[in-house]
Amino acid sequence: MRKTILSGMRPTGALHLGNLYGALKNWVRLQEDDSYERFYFVADWHALTTGFDASEDITENTLNMVIDWLAFGLDPDNNTIFVQSLVKEHAELFLLLSMITPVGWLERVPSYKDQIAQLGKAKTSNYGFLGYPVLMAADIIIYKAHLVPVGLDQVAHLEFARELVRHFNHLVKKDVFIEPQPLLTEVPKILGLDGRKMSKSYNNAIYLSDSEEETQKKIKVMFTDPRRKRKTDPGIAEECGVFMLHKIFTPKEKQEEIKLACSKAQIGCVECKKLLTKNVNEGLSEIRDKRNQLIKNKGKVKEILIEGSKKASRKAKETMEEVRDAIFSKARFG
Amino acid sequence: MRKTILSGMRPTGALHLGNLYGALKNWVRLQEDDSYERFYFVADWHALTTGFDASEDITENTLNMVIDWLAFGLDPDNNTIFVQSLVKEHAELFLLLSMITPVGWLERVPSYKDQIAQLGKAKTSNYGFLGYPVLMAADIIIYKAHLVPVGLDQVAHLEFARELVRHFNHLVKKDVFIEPQPLLTEVPKILGLDGRKMSKSYNNAIYLSDSEEETQKKIKVMFTDPRRKRKTDPGIAEECGVFMLHKIFTPKEKQEEIKLACSKAQIGCVECKKLLTKNVNEGLSEIRDKRNQLIKNKGKVKEILIEGSKKASRKAKETMEEVRDAIFSKARFG
Repeated sequence: MRKTILSGMRPTGALHLGNLYGALKNWVRLQEDDSYERFYFVADWHALTTGFDASEDITENTLNMVIDWLAFGLDPDNNTIFVQSLVKEHAELFLLLSMITPVGWLERVPSYKDQIAQLGKAKTSNYGFLGYPVLMAADIIIYKAHLVPVGLDQVAHLEFARELVRHFNHLVKKDVFIEPQPLLTEVPKILGLDGRKMSKSYNNAIYLSDSEEETQKKIKVMFTDPRRKRKTDPGIAEECGVFMLHKIFTPKEKQEEIKLACSKAQIGCVECKKLLTKNVNEGLSEIRDKRNQLIKNKGKVKEILIEGSKKASRKAKETMEEVRDAIFSKARFG
Repeated sequence: MRKTILSGMRPTGALHLGNLYGALKNWVRLQEDDSYERFYFVADWHALTTGFDASEDITENTLNMVIDWLAFGLDPDNNTIFVQSLVKEHAELFLLLSMITPVGWLERVPSYKDQIAQLGKAKTSNYGFLGYPVLMAADIIIYKAHLVPVGLDQVAHLEFARELVRHFNHLVKKDVFIEPQPLLTEVPKILGLDGRKMSKSYNNAIYLSDSEEETQKKIKVMFTDPRRKRKTDPGIAEECGVFMLHKIFTPKEKQEEIKLACSKAQIGCVECKKLLTKNVNEGLSEIRDKRNQLIKNKGKVKEILIEGSKKASRKAKETMEEVRDAIFSKARFG
C-alpha cells in the first residue's frame, strides 16, 4: 500500500523565498516519489483562529498562494491540492475529537503560550484558537496520513495528534486512525532584508510576485555580515543573508569563489549583491512567467482546487464512515 | 412570516412522566398553533460531551426517545423532527463560531461549574464539554429560531447564544443570525418515587415504557407527605408527590375531593395511590398502545428521522451559504 503524505499552509497570499525554498521545495521534491499518495491543502479555517477580522481576504489569499504553489512546480495531476473549508468532514471530525480532548492537553501545547505572547490576548483568547491542535489533528488523521512534512516547530502538534489517535482508538477499541509521523527535512536558512528570519509579518521578505526591479531594490538594502563596515573589512559569508541566497541561486563553484573573496575582502557587498540579483531574477524568471500566466487564469486555479477538494472529500468521507461506525456502532442512522 | 420554534433533547432513551408532562406536553401543545414553524431534534452529538464511553447506545436511545415523542402525540407531519448528527452543518457552524467565542465567556456559563461539581472532573474536562454552549448556539441559530421552549435552567445558555449572535453579526457587519428568545412555560412539578425531582439519573422515575404492573409497584412505594406517619395524621396534598400526579391524571373535581379528604385524614395513602394507579394506567393506556406499535416498527421511526433530517438540512444549508458569504465574501469558492 502506498503511504500517504499530507501537509498544509495557512492562506498567507503571495509566498516569499523562505516559503518557497523551505516547505514548498520539499513538496515538489516529494512528488517525484510514487510510493507516496500526496495531499496538500490550504488551511483557510485555521486562518480564522487568529484572523477573523480579515476573513474577507482569505479567498484571494488562497488563490494567490496556490498560484505560487503551481508556478513553483507543484503538479495538480500528481498531488491532491485542496481547500480545507471545502471538505466539511474536517469540521465534523473536529467536533467529534473535541469530545475526547482534555482541555489540559491543549493548554500544555508549547506553541499555545508562545502564540499568546506573540499575538497578544485579543487574538488568542477564543475557543477556536485554544482548539486549533484538535482541528490540525483532524486535518491530518482524516486522510490517514502516515507522514507529515513539517518544520521542527510543528513537531509538538504532531505529537499531540498522535496522542489523540491513541486515545481515540483506545476508546472505540478499534484502530480507526493511524499515528502520523513527522517527515523532517533540512531546509536552508533564509534571512530577510533586515537580518531576521524571512517572514511576511516582519515585512522583510522577497516574494515570487516581486518584479525584477523590486527584487533588485530589496537586495540592494539587504543586511550583510555586520563585520564588513568597510569594503576592506573581511567577512564571514556563512553568516551573511546575501550569501544564504547565493547558496540557493548561484552555482556551487561560484559560491566557493565568493566565500573566499569575502573572507579576504576581495569582493565588495555591492558587487556581491549585483551578482545575486542577476542570479535570483534569472533563477525565478520561468517561475515568474508561469505565475503571471496563472494570475490571468484564476478560474483555472479555482477549478483545480475544487476538483482537488472533491477528491479529498471522497477519502475524508470514507474515513468518517468508519469513525461514525466506531463511535455510534454499525446500527447508526444514515 | 411564520416564526420558527426549535428545541431539542439529549437521547436519554425512554422518557419518564417528568419529561412527558414537562417539555413534551409543551411541544405537543405548540403544534396546534400554525403561526409557528417547528423543529425538534435529538442532540446526539451533545450526548458525547459527557457520555463518550457509552456512545454505542446513542442510536438505540435516540430511537426509543423519539418513539415516546411520537406516541405522546408529536406529529411528524406537522413538525420537523430530526437528528443533530445527520445535519453536518451544525458541526461547520460550531467550528466557525468557535473562532469568535472567547474562552472566558464559556468558563462563566453558570452550568459549567455546576456540571463539573455534579459529574466530576473526569467527564467534564474535555474541550467539547467546555464548548457545548457554542454547539448549542449553533443548533439554534442555524435555523434562525425565534423562540426556544426551555426550562429556567436553560435561560443562561440562550443568553449565551444571543451574545454570540450579536458578536457574529457585528464582526461580519450583517444581520445574518436572529437572537433567539426563551419561550418559558409553566411545567407541573413532578416528583420521583423518593420525593426528589423525577429524574432518570436518580433512578426514581415512572416511564411510559413501564407496564401497568410496574407502574402499580412503583406508585405503591412512592413517598407521600411525611406528615402522614399514620393514616389518622392529616396531610397537605400540595406537598405530596402522589397528589402532584393526581393533578395530571385525575379529574379536577376528584382532585379537590382528595385534597380535602387528605387534610382531614379521611383517605389513606394506600387508597389514594390505588386511585392514582388506576388513573395513570388509564391515562397512559392509548399512548402506551401507540408506543408498543411503534416499537415493532422502528424502521418507520428511522425513516421519519431521516426525512426530517433532510428537511432540516435544507434550511441549515441555506443559512450556511449566508454565513460563508458573510465570513469569506461572496467571491468565495464552491
